[in-house]
Amino acid sequence: MSDQVLVFSRFSKKLLARIGQRFDLLDTYGAPPLEAFSAAQLASIRALITAGGQPLGADVMDALPALGAIVCYGTGYDGVDLAAARARNIAVGNSPAANAAAVADLAMALLLATERRLLPADQYVRGGGWASAAASPLMSAPRGLTGARVGVYGMGEIGRKIAARAAAFEMEVQYHSRSRHDVPYPYHADLGDLVAWCDILIIAVRAGAETHHVVDAAMLRKLGAGGTLINIARGSVVDQAALTAALADRTIAAAGLDVFETEPHQPGALSALPTVVLTPHIGGHTASSHLRMQDCVIANLAAFFAGQPLAYPVQA
Amino acid sequence: MSDQVLVFSRFSKKLLARIGQRFDLLDTYGAPPLEAFSAAQLASIRALITAGGQPLGADVMDALPALGAIVCYGTGYDGVDLAAARARNIAVGNSPAANAAAVADLAMALLLATERRLLPADQYVRGGGWASAAASPLMSAPRGLTGARVGVYGMGEIGRKIAARAAAFEMEVQYHSRSRHDVPYPYHADLGDLVAWCDILIIAVRAGAETHHVVDAAMLRKLGAGGTLINIARGSVVDQAALTAALADRTIAAAGLDVFETEPHQPGALSALPTVVLTPHIGGHTASSHLRMQDCVIANLAAFFAGQPLAYPVQA
Repeated sequence: MSDQVLVFSRFSKKLLARIGQRFDLLDTYGAPPLEAFSAAQLASIRALITAGGQPLGADVMDALPALGAIVCYGTGYDGVDLAAARARNIAVGNSPAANAAAVADLAMALLLATERRLLPADQYVRGGGWASAAASPLMSAPRGLTGARVGVYGMGEIGRKIAARAAAFEMEVQYHSRSRHDVPYPYHADLGDLVAWCDILIIAVRAGAETHHVVDAAMLRKLGAGGTLINIARGSVVDQAALTAALADRTIAAAGLDVFETEPHQPGALSALPTVVLTPHIGGHTASSHLRMQDCVIANLAAFFAGQPLAYPVQA
Repeated sequence: MSDQVLVFSRFSKKLLARIGQRFDLLDTYGAPPLEAFSAAQLASIRALITAGGQPLGADVMDALPALGAIVCYGTGYDGVDLAAARARNIAVGNSPAANAAAVADLAMALLLATERRLLPADQYVRGGGWASAAASPLMSAPRGLTGARVGVYGMGEIGRKIAARAAAFEMEVQYHSRSRHDVPYPYHADLGDLVAWCDILIIAVRAGAETHHVVDAAMLRKLGAGGTLINIARGSVVDQAALTAALADRTIAAAGLDVFETEPHQPGALSALPTVVLTPHIGGHTASSHLRMQDCVIANLAAFFAGQPLAYPVQA
C-alpha cells in the first residue's frame, strides 16, 4: 500500500492527479480533518499537503499525533505555525521558486492592465461606446510606461523576475528588501523612501508578522495621486480598508490585486471602482508552474517517506 | 500671422494644443474639407495634418491646389495615396518610431490579458463568483508564458520592442518580415512557417496593399487551437470575418485586438466572445508618445514652411 498523505486544503482533483499516482491521498476537500476523517484514521497520518497561506496551527498538528511532514503546495508557508511545527519535530517543506515566473507574469499583466486602462477600454469597445462616439473614458492619455518608476518591494525569486520584466519595458526599477541583493537596481534601505520615489509599487515580499499592514494609509499617501499599487504577494501586507479609501478619494490612482486580506474576496467598495483590476489569486496558476510545484511536492514526500530530509525544506 | 495648417482628421483639442501654439490651425473636426471650409479658404492651404490610417487620396489633394506637405501624426501613412502625392509634388512626413514603445507595451498588455484571462478573472471576482465558490472560468490552468512560442510578424521599430519585451518573459521569439534583420531571433522567410511554429502571433507589420488580409482563414488554421492572435498594427492585415469565425468555433484560442477592419469597431459577434480583449486603437495613446509625435509634426511643418525638406519624410 502507498504511503498515506492527508490533503489539508482544498485543491482541484486535476492538481492532485500526479501526486495521487504516487501516494494514497486522504482528501478533506477543505473541511477540518476531524470532520472529514475519524480520529483513528488521522492517528496514522504522517504527512500532509497544504496551501501555504491557509492557517495551520498547533491544534491541527495535535489532531495528527503521527505527523512528521507538512508539505506546502507553492512557495508560501505563512499560514504554517513554524514554531509549533519545530516544537513537535515536524518538517515543513515548500515549492521554492516553482511559480516565480508565473507570478511575475501576472504582476506585469496587472501593471499593464491598470496603466493602459485595459478593462475600461474593452468595455468601451464591447459596449458600443466607441462606435457611437460616446464620451471616452480613455480620452486623457495615460503617462505610458516609458520612463515610469517601478518600486519592487521584496527581491526574492519573484521580485527579481518582476524587475527583469519591468526593465524590458524601458521603466526605471529600484527596490527595497530587508537586505541589499546582488542585482543591478538601486536599493532603498527604507520602504517609505522607495514608495515616495516610485510611480508604481509592486509588492513581492514574503508575508509574515513583520510585513502585516506595512502598506497603510500613510504609505499610500507617499505613493501619491499618480501612484499605482500592484500586489501579487499576500493580502495581509496591505491595509485593505485604507487602500479602498485611498482609491475612492484618489489619494492613489489605481491598483491591480491578485491577493486580498480575506480570500475569497467578497465584492464590496473595491469592486465598484473602474481604476482597479482584481484577480482571484491566480498568480501561480499556470500549467507549467503547477507541474513544477507538483514536482516539488512529490520530491518532498518521497524524501520524507524514505526517511531522508525534505528535498525542499522551508528556509525560514 | 502664423502659417496656416489644415487639420484633416479628427483629433482631440488637447493633442493639438502644442502644435496650435506654433501654427494657425484650420480644424475640420473630421469633416470633409469642403464642408468645413470654403474653396477660397482651402485655396491657400499649403500643409495639413492627418492620421496616417485615414484615406487621403487624389480628390482631397485636388481640393487643396496649394498643398505642399501632408504631415501624418503617428508612424502610419497607409491611408495616404503616396503615388498621387508624388505626382503633385506634395511631400509626405510622419513621426517615425515616436510611438513604438507605447504600441509594443499595448501588444504585451493584450498578450498577457488574453494568456492569463484577465477579463474573465476580474469579472469572476467583481461579480461575486469567487466569493460564492461559483464554477470558475479559470479552473483549467492556462499554459503560462514560460517557454511559449511568440511569432512576431514585422521587425520594424515596434516589432523589435515587442520581441525584447517577450524575451524578458522567458518566451521563445522568432519572426518573419520581408527581409532578415540584424536581431537575435530566428528568421522565417515564410509567414506560414512562422505561424505554424508559434503559439502566439503578434502582427506588427506596416500595412499596405501587399499585407491586405494576409492573415486569413487558412493562416488561422495554421495558428491552431492553442493559438492566440495579437494585432496592434492595422485591421486590414487580418480577414476579420475569418478571425471572428475562427474564434467562435475554436479554430484558434484567443485574440487581443487594438485595430479593426472598420474603425470605430461596431460591437458584433467578436464582442460576444470571452476569449478576446478589444481596445479602441489606443496603442500609441500615451502622454510620452504623444509628446514625441507632436515634436515630429512640429519639426516637419517648421521645415516645410522654412522651405526645407521635411524633417521626417516617409521612407516608402
